[in-house]
Amino acid sequence: VERTIGVALIGQKFMGRAHANAWGQVNRFFEPAVRARAEIVAARDARALPAFARNWGFRRWTSDWREIADDPEVELVDVATPNDLHAEQSIAMLEAGKHVACEKPLAGTFADARAMAAAAAKAKRRGRKTFVWFNYRRVPAVALAWRLVREGALGRVVHVRARYLQSWGGPKAGASWRFERDRAGSGAHGDLNAHLVDLARFLVGEELVLVHGAVEHTFVKKRGVDDCVLFLASFAGGATASFEASRVAQGHWNDHAIELNGEKGSLRFAFEEMNVLELFDGTAPKAKQGWTRILVTSPGVHPYVDRWWPEGHVLGYEHGFVNQAADVLRALAGRKPEVPLPDFEDAFRTQRVLEGALLSAREGAAVKLSDIG
Amino acid sequence: VERTIGVALIGQKFMGRAHANAWGQVNRFFEPAVRARAEIVAARDARALPAFARNWGFRRWTSDWREIADDPEVELVDVATPNDLHAEQSIAMLEAGKHVACEKPLAGTFADARAMAAAAAKAKRRGRKTFVWFNYRRVPAVALAWRLVREGALGRVVHVRARYLQSWGGPKAGASWRFERDRAGSGAHGDLNAHLVDLARFLVGEELVLVHGAVEHTFVKKRGVDDCVLFLASFAGGATASFEASRVAQGHWNDHAIELNGEKGSLRFAFEEMNVLELFDGTAPKAKQGWTRILVTSPGVHPYVDRWWPEGHVLGYEHGFVNQAADVLRALAGRKPEVPLPDFEDAFRTQRVLEGALLSAREGAAVKLSDIG
Amino acid sequence: VERTIGVALIGQKFMGRAHANAWGQVNRFFEPAVRARAEIVAARDARALPAFARNWGFRRWTSDWREIADDPEVELVDVATPNDLHAEQSIAMLEAGKHVACEKPLAGTFADARAMAAAAAKAKRRGRKTFVWFNYRRVPAVALAWRLVREGALGRVVHVRARYLQSWGGPKAGASWRFERDRAGSGAHGDLNAHLVDLARFLVGEELVLVHGAVEHTFVKKRGVDDCVLFLASFAGGATASFEASRVAQGHWNDHAIELNGEKGSLRFAFEEMNVLELFDGTAPKAKQGWTRILVTSPGVHPYVDRWWPEGHVLGYEHGFVNQAADVLRALAGRKPEVPLPDFEDAFRTQRVLEGALLSAREGAAVKLSDIG
Amino acid sequence: VERTIGVALIGQKFMGRAHANAWGQVNRFFEPAVRARAEIVAARDARALPAFARNWGFRRWTSDWREIADDPEVELVDVATPNDLHAEQSIAMLEAGKHVACEKPLAGTFADARAMAAAAAKAKRRGRKTFVWFNYRRVPAVALAWRLVREGALGRVVHVRARYLQSWGGPKAGASWRFERDRAGSGAHGDLNAHLVDLARFLVGEELVLVHGAVEHTFVKKRGVDDCVLFLASFAGGATASFEASRVAQGHWNDHAIELNGEKGSLRFAFEEMNVLELFDGTAPKAKQGWTRILVTSPGVHPYVDRWWPEGHVLGYEHGFVNQAADVLRALAGRKPEVPLPDFEDAFRTQRVLEGALLSAREGAAVKLSDIG
Repeated sequence: VERTIGVALIGQKFMGRAHANAWGQVNRFFEPAVRARAEIVAARDARALPAFARNWGFRRWTSDWREIADDPEVELVDVATPNDLHAEQSIAMLEAGKHVACEKPLAGTFADARAMAAAAAKAKRRGRKTFVWFNYRRVPAVALAWRLVREGALGRVVHVRARYLQSWGGPKAGASWRFERDRAGSGAHGDLNAHLVDLARFLVGEELVLVHGAVEHTFVKKRGVDDCVLFLASFAGGATASFEASRVAQGHWNDHAIELNGEKGSLRFAFEEMNVLELFDGTAPKAKQGWTRILVTSPGVHPYVDRWWPEGHVLGYEHGFVNQAADVLRALAGRKPEVPLPDFEDAFRTQRVLEGALLSAREGAAVKLSDIG
Repeated sequence: VERTIGVALIGQKFMGRAHANAWGQVNRFFEPAVRARAEIVAARDARALPAFARNWGFRRWTSDWREIADDPEVELVDVATPNDLHAEQSIAMLEAGKHVACEKPLAGTFADARAMAAAAAKAKRRGRKTFVWFNYRRVPAVALAWRLVREGALGRVVHVRARYLQSWGGPKAGASWRFERDRAGSGAHGDLNAHLVDLARFLVGEELVLVHGAVEHTFVKKRGVDDCVLFLASFAGGATASFEASRVAQGHWNDHAIELNGEKGSLRFAFEEMNVLELFDGTAPKAKQGWTRILVTSPGVHPYVDRWWPEGHVLGYEHGFVNQAADVLRALAGRKPEVPLPDFEDAFRTQRVLEGALLSAREGAAVKLSDIG
Repeated sequence: VERTIGVALIGQKFMGRAHANAWGQVNRFFEPAVRARAEIVAARDARALPAFARNWGFRRWTSDWREIADDPEVELVDVATPNDLHAEQSIAMLEAGKHVACEKPLAGTFADARAMAAAAAKAKRRGRKTFVWFNYRRVPAVALAWRLVREGALGRVVHVRARYLQSWGGPKAGASWRFERDRAGSGAHGDLNAHLVDLARFLVGEELVLVHGAVEHTFVKKRGVDDCVLFLASFAGGATASFEASRVAQGHWNDHAIELNGEKGSLRFAFEEMNVLELFDGTAPKAKQGWTRILVTSPGVHPYVDRWWPEGHVLGYEHGFVNQAADVLRALAGRKPEVPLPDFEDAFRTQRVLEGALLSAREGAAVKLSDIG
Repeated sequence: VERTIGVALIGQKFMGRAHANAWGQVNRFFEPAVRARAEIVAARDARALPAFARNWGFRRWTSDWREIADDPEVELVDVATPNDLHAEQSIAMLEAGKHVACEKPLAGTFADARAMAAAAAKAKRRGRKTFVWFNYRRVPAVALAWRLVREGALGRVVHVRARYLQSWGGPKAGASWRFERDRAGSGAHGDLNAHLVDLARFLVGEELVLVHGAVEHTFVKKRGVDDCVLFLASFAGGATASFEASRVAQGHWNDHAIELNGEKGSLRFAFEEMNVLELFDGTAPKAKQGWTRILVTSPGVHPYVDRWWPEGHVLGYEHGFVNQAADVLRALAGRKPEVPLPDFEDAFRTQRVLEGALLSAREGAAVKLSDIG
């Protein structure tokens, strides 16, 4: 008999679609021990729901997400709504005994994030798991980077530089909840720096301890949220780190990029070439040293790839979500994910760094992160 | 009421899986006027069929592909088998009144290809359509290239250089029907040069008329097929063209690449960076001339992209197949595909070029393509 | 009759050699209205001087640089010594009525820089000119960037990100005056951030007004100077700017790079590909937008190039120095340089930014640059 | 006492200037055991000669190149004239007992080349040396490639693909001896394919034995020479090789590029990024395999670099000539050059390949190179 787990999805826009696709494709490509069962989808706009449910294979739909709490067919709730709803929905579902996978950032506000981490800690004691969709961890090139760092390819890390640059946020951009402070919490900062901080912490394997300085700027004046936030920080081990998130950086569409320099070597990744990881091996014979451009598409060798296509047949954006769905299913089946999955506690630490950066920008002073509760 | 078209798939290996995924994803992402209905899958290995059918949503399965001919639920037959079966299966299905979409190359032998083209011509008079899965035409960057050439971005084309380099075919490669002359017809030539010739003809919009010279070589001696074939040719309009297909080119995994130089500008594409098209505009102010690296991911602007993700969220290998499935459904609904779909007649012209190259290699002489029947 | 100007060079190491070459090649390649006459070279190490002088065509040599002050044959003194000597030598020569071209950074300490700017202002009233060897301004790709910004290719600039990364400063690096606080003033900061700040100010055409935060770090503990300094700042017009200088960034050899994002477009340059400027034109038709890789080697079109080789025949590191020598000779002949030449006053403004960054790093607070005298 | 060798240069245009610069810079940067003494320059245009001689440091000049034959101060004659003069001038100088360094291609016609090789063989018996300015061998990245092949980095070579693409030869190009059949012999073929064939033979270390096919085309009809020649060939060891030379390839300025694929790895080089060599090491751990981009600028590690600048300070076009001048001086002093220098015999073998390609294009048939005398 096939084991399945009932999944409820809240949200049907960009992220709702990306997650729905992930729950479908994971069964087809990963043959998981426990398969996902697309049980129910919830969203405010009832008119669009029937078509969405049919398209993505959900058995049922509802315009009232609260109904999910008591639904005995649902074991995992996938929260893919705007940031201001994450806390209310996630906490309600955890209290109802569901596992919760929440879209990033954990929350729009630090207070929300703190409440979510607390609820997750409580639920964990009752065996409930939480996950956050920092999907980029599961791009094969990033997962390979994580593995190489663990294997010692860099030695002690000295520098991290991370940028997440987009360009859709100019003066002509249409209305979006992403520009509303009440709903999004912040602009590029929560949206993009959240990814960067998660990626930096994930790859380095240390916590950031100090924000040296920051700048938050809104070029499009009418807007309630920042267009860009830059900050400098240090890791516990002394590595310097720079972060830049912007929605007004012409020439960059979804340029989520990170570089790590260590005493023995360096690594870099940029999402717009998501199938590539670049490695500099400072221990190679000097005459042959250089950046090696690894096309991370070799089945049996590179993470996740054996579930997809033959060598050189590259993957796209949504594959990170499918890979994450596979790891969530593994975790729920008591198995180990390919690379660590972030839970609410982990995402709360990322949120603390974001909060520290904002404080630093607003006060014009360095901020010690351990001072932030 | 929803209109659907019943699809039968023959084959369940690499291509079977790629096509099955396409028939599923096309409904989810394209909302086609006529949706695909995965009716039945046929393959020799009966043991694997039930799982395959369930996984990919096929209602039924059979280990005898001939049953499909009389199946009233099937309107389109998708042939995803080794090359030696294309002719028999396609011709049988055309004669049974089905539309046929056949994997490339059209056939393993020129005789088979000729028979298929004849059968398609006959079936066409009865309203039956044929398609060949030259999926790379529908990579958005390639479709954009086609459009730019049509708009005159290059002016008269003077040079085409095309390469399809892989490296899996060294002495240690495992057994595969792709190495057997009886089943594959040829090695790198039919497998890879077929794509190159299709792409070159598609983009330039002219026929090749002359093969100047060619070399066919098998480095791994035990093998029945070529490891590489290179040839030089000319287009009707005078442009020179070079083609190189190899399975033993270290450093290349799936390097399907083409460059066109015209009197006004140039274009180039390489599949390992499949989301990128490079354009050189020789009419721009001289001080600013250079290769522009276009990330072909802008919804509403670039072909196919609006069905997928926001800007900068790149696509992968299988999206070309889904895009082709969408165009096949459009064609069957009497609509125009995004870019031209190759039918058997068109693929036969490609096959004639391949045949001419082989003759040239074997005879050590130039070959006029119109001499080949 | 040929007009020449007598040049005295102080220094015979890396920079002495680069400058000596520049004074020789400028005559051969630029046919300047006023030619350089390599009159005398001064340095401490008398043993090496005769060979140096003969090799580079200097008529005379001296181990006492002070002799130059009274030398009637010398009109221009070129100071290519370690940072701690810049002030003493430059001021003495200005007071002796010579023009002075000083290697960057202007000085090792802010006090020295202030004194030099004052001396230059005084000398200027007597018609004496000063120059600083920020040679990268005269790499053709950078000079083209300057021109494109002036022509409005970017519109209002919103972001600048600048990095100068090297990797020679690890624990095994040999002794050098560049590691001594007394001689160099600082480490990567004065050496590399000086270039970045000059380049950013030059290209944007505005002053930096605020340092938001900074970090200064020495990984190799025995060392008297920093291994890296990062800082965030804002331009007068509101653009954010990030700077990172490091000598311990594995994988980077001389990676002097800058990117500007504006409302209409973007530009980027990286020295390791010094013949290339990348331009993103946000006003181009959307379907064709992308980074254009301009090979800045077209005579008659790109700055400086017509003095060198035919199109596509790339230049190297020393050409920036030769180009600067040509512009210095132009300036001394009362002509306009190809792009603006930095004098001591200009370089002092760069030094103020460096000083502000150090203060910010040490105090953990934002620093308003107008507060620094 | 310093040893010098008297050099006579014939020619004062593009190549004359490049060679003159090389003879000057080699003394400054290489401190050769035997220094070059720029003795005399000869050219037809007497008006330009005095300025040229003064600029480049030649002691004397003459408008009659034949005078050099009897000049006792001249030991080495450097022929930098159009192709039709190479044979007459070189042979006269060899017969007069001079060493001769001739610009490439060896000659405009095969008959001339044969005569030159014969004269060189005769002169060699009297201790006279010949050299051909295939300067690209001495670009550090190319010299490193040669060394890596020798060390076995590629194993058995299976494919070579070489292109030399330029774009200055469109219909609007001005008059040049390079377009005249009488003076140049051929167009892109002799000019550019000569470099490619030399580079391929040099790197592989084998002779080409068979031309499989070729195409020669002139797009600009009025012209007496080809605009492009493409051909396919095989090396003695079985490697396939493709060559393409064009002057009408928009988007390419001086794109002299070669790639070698071997059983163990691959190498590639493209002159427009002349400081870079890319290496694919197929023996590295699979997960880390990829193209390594080596910046060939490390003194003490990479060929020629220690004579120039610190790491990461890139070189330009003319450095290949200076490096060749250094090796010529080494050879004349009885020392070993950094990498092998081509003499007339060696260049004659290259010319035979070019001749074979032309025959193949004209006859539409494969050509065995040993059949060409």
